[in-house]
Amino acid sequence: MSHERTAQMSTRATLFYAASEADSNLYYATRFIAPDPFLYVDIKGERLLVMSDLEMDRARHQAKVDQVLSYSEFERRAKAEASHQPGPMDVAHVLLRERGVDQVLVPSNFPFGHAVRLQELGYRLESKKEPFFEQRVIKTAEEVLHIEASQRATEQAVAAAHDLLRRATPRDGMLWIDGDPLTSERVKKLINVRLMEHDCVAQHTIVAGGEQACDPHDEGSGPLPADRSIIFDVFPRSATSRYFADMSRTVVRGTVSPELRRLYQTVLDAQEEAIDTIRDGADGVKIHQRICERFEAAGYRTGLVNGRMQGYFHGTGHGVGLDIHEAPRISRNGSRLQEGHVVTVEPGLYYPGLGAVRIEDMVLVTSDGCRNLTQYPKVFEIG
Amino acid sequence: MSHERTAQMSTRATLFYAASEADSNLYYATRFIAPDPFLYVDIKGERLLVMSDLEMDRARHQAKVDQVLSYSEFERRAKAEASHQPGPMDVAHVLLRERGVDQVLVPSNFPFGHAVRLQELGYRLESKKEPFFEQRVIKTAEEVLHIEASQRATEQAVAAAHDLLRRATPRDGMLWIDGDPLTSERVKKLINVRLMEHDCVAQHTIVAGGEQACDPHDEGSGPLPADRSIIFDVFPRSATSRYFADMSRTVVRGTVSPELRRLYQTVLDAQEEAIDTIRDGADGVKIHQRICERFEAAGYRTGLVNGRMQGYFHGTGHGVGLDIHEAPRISRNGSRLQEGHVVTVEPGLYYPGLGAVRIEDMVLVTSDGCRNLTQYPKVFEIG
Repeated sequence: MSHERTAQMSTRATLFYAASEADSNLYYATRFIAPDPFLYVDIKGERLLVMSDLEMDRARHQAKVDQVLSYSEFERRAKAEASHQPGPMDVAHVLLRERGVDQVLVPSNFPFGHAVRLQELGYRLESKKEPFFEQRVIKTAEEVLHIEASQRATEQAVAAAHDLLRRATPRDGMLWIDGDPLTSERVKKLINVRLMEHDCVAQHTIVAGGEQACDPHDEGSGPLPADRSIIFDVFPRSATSRYFADMSRTVVRGTVSPELRRLYQTVLDAQEEAIDTIRDGADGVKIHQRICERFEAAGYRTGLVNGRMQGYFHGTGHGVGLDIHEAPRISRNGSRLQEGHVVTVEPGLYYPGLGAVRIEDMVLVTSDGCRNLTQYPKVFEIG
Repeated sequence: MSHERTAQMSTRATLFYAASEADSNLYYATRFIAPDPFLYVDIKGERLLVMSDLEMDRARHQAKVDQVLSYSEFERRAKAEASHQPGPMDVAHVLLRERGVDQVLVPSNFPFGHAVRLQELGYRLESKKEPFFEQRVIKTAEEVLHIEASQRATEQAVAAAHDLLRRATPRDGMLWIDGDPLTSERVKKLINVRLMEHDCVAQHTIVAGGEQACDPHDEGSGPLPADRSIIFDVFPRSATSRYFADMSRTVVRGTVSPELRRLYQTVLDAQEEAIDTIRDGADGVKIHQRICERFEAAGYRTGLVNGRMQGYFHGTGHGVGLDIHEAPRISRNGSRLQEGHVVTVEPGLYYPGLGAVRIEDMVLVTSDGCRNLTQYPKVFEIG
């Protein structure tokens, strides 16, 4: 009897309440995009959406779920019992109760306010860390095609930007075009507009030269320098497929000093060696450590100098898919790589005074190696 | 003594752990954009960031906070005590403990997984609903200027799209341009590219005609119809200021039926009357109800027909700022309007078979009325 009671009591549901526009797990589970939060419930494999009147119709046509239910109907039922205006968890409660659910599994980013309400309503809550859907880190052939399409768009946009740099004239330490200084802003706009022409949305595109490039997330501003390295880091999302791509290249327009050339070659060698070691089962921590060791051995130290980090102080790679940064990682806290992962490989070195180099490809991990999804050439000196 | 002890025990901190790229409250509090989550702590008015090595430098230059601390330093201290790899809340714990914090206030969207860890570490957690920062709904003069700049970019992009429609020829129920059908995709791309040229990022732009427009969130696809209404809904975000704008217009290219003309006029009259009633103290619920009543009185019924909603089944307006949908609301669950709110006013009517109309302006609430931030004309028949 005790056993029977336990069995009866232990119906568990997975529950999301989020805007799929901002929550890639929810988009992955439903393939439905909405700008405002909605309810998704999976009860023993039956996948349900509870949608506002505004989204009902579209959800019924587009969402890859078993059933689309009406939020306003459940809200009416919740109102009939409550003295106050029912919130989304009170509405979820009507559904969960009629299905006999008493345990709820939520993603670790589930809103705390709603979690508290579910607990007040008597549910036992568990949260699960990323990756919530283990399958999401393993890309299907279709997902790889989407990522490659975003990457092709990225490459033609960066090619257009490099053409513009080629047309520019180095003079007085700056780049000039048609009589004006060539600015980071102008080059970034060219890239972003080109990407939009291919239905790709680029945000925070980096075109940063000289000292600016020594801060890896500085997006760049003002006139671009001649004779110094300029980092391009471009990572748009396809507005149609919603998959990202990610690529970095470093170039110089003008004259390259031997010190800068050596910096570039060191990063390039480390990146290519790292790519050679990627395969199913490879250890992301070791791949990252090996790059750190190579840089140290070549005399490129990492640490604080005058209160500012220099050397190599970011991770080597991250997964790319419906999010620009997703599992797995190739870093200090990296994980083991598996066939089907799509990861970036992007070592860099940053030395104020000398300059900065970052080179980034995106690869698909295979059983015995990897396939480089990036086709853009690695050319340091352009012009 | 009991009193002293209580005073000593009750140090409360506000804590965020989020990516400001995706969390507008955190961006509002720090004016610092980062793609990955970081820690923000406010202890008795002292505002602290705890940043990774990667973001330290940029945060020190850009963030509007009192102090930027090093995540890796606190992580080292957390590691010295822990047997496991410390997570972000273990790292926060080192800081909170040394400041004598025992209560933590978090936003209601604070990740449940981290909330549980803070509770395990002994903190008393409280969450606060939106608006977390009450001041964020009251726009400063500078914020209004940012919103207006995004709106000007929106208007020039929509003007270019309407020019394209003017150049098109209505024939056989469709619009043709240069011998090809004019598609929603082509018009949306024109709008999105124009906006990107003005450093505005447009996503989910709606250019939907005929039956498609009867689903308010259908973005539109395929050839655009002649003689039927086409809804334009454009809501880009400035990549520089990060403020949104939002505008909808409905147009016809070709011949307008008397029924469609009456539908348009009804929505237009309702929208203009609603704008006339907006002022400090006006009730968002009443403004919405008045529109519903007008529509009913004019014979436009709302409800399910053949399993599909028709009539007026979305809210009348929402706040616009760092988010496209933010407080306050003009709707069934609306709130009282206050001087400094920026809200949309966007009634619509949707009837499969006949067509759809939505007209949306964005207004700034003032003490005795409102200022319309939208300058784009309302013209139904173009050509």
